[in-house]
Amino acid sequence: MPTGDRVLVPFDDLAEVAGPEWPFGLRVDVWDGTGDPPADLDDVALHVLPYGVPRAYEALDRLPGVRIVQSLRAGVDELLPLVGPDVVVANGRGLHDASTAEHALALILAAQRELPRWVRDQDARRWDPHFVGSLADRRVLLVGAGAIGGAIARRLEACEAQVVPVARRARPDEGVHAIDDLDRLLPDAEIVVLVVPDTADTRGLLDARRLALLPDGALVVNVGRGSAIDTAALVAEAGRLRAALDVVDPEPLPADHPLWTAPGILITPHVAGGSATFPPRARRLVVEQLRRFAAGQPLANVIERP
Amino acid sequence: MPTGDRVLVPFDDLAEVAGPEWPFGLRVDVWDGTGDPPADLDDVALHVLPYGVPRAYEALDRLPGVRIVQSLRAGVDELLPLVGPDVVVANGRGLHDASTAEHALALILAAQRELPRWVRDQDARRWDPHFVGSLADRRVLLVGAGAIGGAIARRLEACEAQVVPVARRARPDEGVHAIDDLDRLLPDAEIVVLVVPDTADTRGLLDARRLALLPDGALVVNVGRGSAIDTAALVAEAGRLRAALDVVDPEPLPADHPLWTAPGILITPHVAGGSATFPPRARRLVVEQLRRFAAGQPLANVIERP
Ligand SMILES: NC(=O)c1ccc[n+]([C@@H]2O[C@H](COP(=O)([O-])OP(=O)(O)OC[C@H]3O[C@@H](n4cnc5c(N)ncnc54)[C@H](OP(=O)(O)O)[C@@H]3O)[C@@H](O)[C@H]2O)c1
Ligand SMILES: NC(=O)c1ccc[n+]([C@@H]2O[C@H](COP(=O)([O-])OP(=O)(O)OC[C@H]3O[C@@H](n4cnc5c(N)ncnc54)[C@H](OP(=O)(O)O)[C@@H]3O)[C@@H](O)[C@H]2O)c1
Repeated sequence: MPTGDRVLVPFDDLAEVAGPEWPFGLRVDVWDGTGDPPADLDDVALHVLPYGVPRAYEALDRLPGVRIVQSLRAGVDELLPLVGPDVVVANGRGLHDASTAEHALALILAAQRELPRWVRDQDARRWDPHFVGSLADRRVLLVGAGAIGGAIARRLEACEAQVVPVARRARPDEGVHAIDDLDRLLPDAEIVVLVVPDTADTRGLLDARRLALLPDGALVVNVGRGSAIDTAALVAEAGRLRAALDVVDPEPLPADHPLWTAPGILITPHVAGGSATFPPRARRLVVEQLRRFAAGQPLANVIERP
Repeated sequence: MPTGDRVLVPFDDLAEVAGPEWPFGLRVDVWDGTGDPPADLDDVALHVLPYGVPRAYEALDRLPGVRIVQSLRAGVDELLPLVGPDVVVANGRGLHDASTAEHALALILAAQRELPRWVRDQDARRWDPHFVGSLADRRVLLVGAGAIGGAIARRLEACEAQVVPVARRARPDEGVHAIDDLDRLLPDAEIVVLVVPDTADTRGLLDARRLALLPDGALVVNVGRGSAIDTAALVAEAGRLRAALDVVDPEPLPADHPLWTAPGILITPHVAGGSATFPPRARRLVVEQLRRFAAGQPLANVIERP
């Protein structure tokens, strides 16, 4: 049954996704995170945060009656301290898997097939072919075997690479190794892909000692969080190792940072999750969550809070 | 039984691939296509052409006794006029599939995820994120559903794209459309990938009229032969359409050609087939062909000559 509850969402075009039952008996306000949040939000019960804008969290402290906050991000570590302990928090798990995995693949292929070189040759109008590397036949160590890691593995396998996945704990039936094996696995990796969250355990995971275990010419890819790599140590190894990074530490990378110009490093500015696959998937999730909310059913993707 | 025949091959390290039976009772000479061919080749019976060098065909007219010529390329149209009608010609079918398909994927992802922009931003030390396109969820028209087309399709499907393959004749059981449907299919294509050989029928396949059928912003990818696209027509549509091309017409592209600087065009200098996956696969084929030849068995990949 419709509850008449008021909700604040970042999209104004949900009717076409939702179909004829829209708005499910709810009162819907829209704030996309640009400009100030609307006034008089006291009775908003559910808030879907705007995505990819600096002011995403700004409406939160004007919502005394909020019972549910839906983030469209995979990680909610920044959000949790901002909401009371009784508020239900749901995340955007799954929305970014295809996009982020695809960007990881784009970075790997760009590095192996030397696309930065061809772009710069094109700018110089230079036709100068030579043999390049490949992803096919390469041994890829995939550190992080969760939702995005799984989506990366499926793509790598279709590209005829040999994938060795690693997670916190081993899952022998899926061929997943434990992180405790990392030091033993690094010397055999031709490509290592990081897609782990930012936690106390992952910070500095690839430090100077571990980078030194990688063979000459190995490619380091990061689409998880920049903190997983010791940036100074990577700069020191640039030239011997290569890297393709969507996330770095610090972010944004200051213009005078040596990582920009270190040899064999390709940088994209944290754009893996935000591609054309995201908006339609995000709208479908929001509509489904509002349908459940209006019907009094439990939401999907709810975070367990300690 | 070993025949004692003499063979001329481009690799000097086949023993490690071939194992203890090497050289199968054959007399093996090596010429890798750099420098002059060896003298006194009158009794060479089988010649494996060097690959990826300008002088690849140069030993041919010094081989009066040659009975079999093995090319490591997929297309042998340049070779056939150079050898007598009784000579058996075998091609490198399969050797380039993974490499060429992978490069097609690299070009598509580079264009969709705007890697040229990030490379140029990196050169300017600029951190300026924005939403990008994707391959996932896109409708891809794949013109050419042969060995390489099949390898491309498997990769695209793992990337969650919708693939519509096209060949000369329809194969309904495989979902392959006939080329006669092309005009009807182009208006729905967000990405069109060409991987067809150079023939009288494929020359100018994408001409001004057909390019005009593509929707605004569509991406044209070519990893087959440059002749399949009318280059002047593509330059005229640049800006409305995007393109990522490993093969162009003419090749090499002269420094003053307008394609180099047309907006939204990414060019690589015909490097799709020659990547790190090729040498080991090529060596395995050559060893297998020599083993068959020495044993008096028919070779693989023999071309039917009219
Ligand atoms: N670049 C971008 O735009 C972008 C976009 C989306 C997400 N991300 C990042 O990607 C991260 C992963 O996302 P996801 O959806 O795949 O998360 P997920 O499903 O929770 O998977 C996380 C994986 O990391 C592993 N892991 C966690 N801590 C580890 C440690 N100390 N050592 C080794 N492995 C560890 C987990 O191991 P277990 O399987 O053993 O638990 C799991 O396999 C997110 O947290 C986010 O930071 C980045
Ligand atoms: N860029 C590079 O470095 C590189 C490397 C290797 C190869 N190549 C090029 O890629 C081409 C394809 O290689 P492949 O191994 O995939 O060849 P293949 O197995 O012979 O397949 C060719 C495909 O093209 C289709 N085709 C031929 N003429 C056509 C036409 N007029 N209209 C529509 N489709 C047509 C064929 O249709 P049917 O299935 O109906 O016969 C077949 O599906 C080669 O000929 C070569 O020129 C480029």
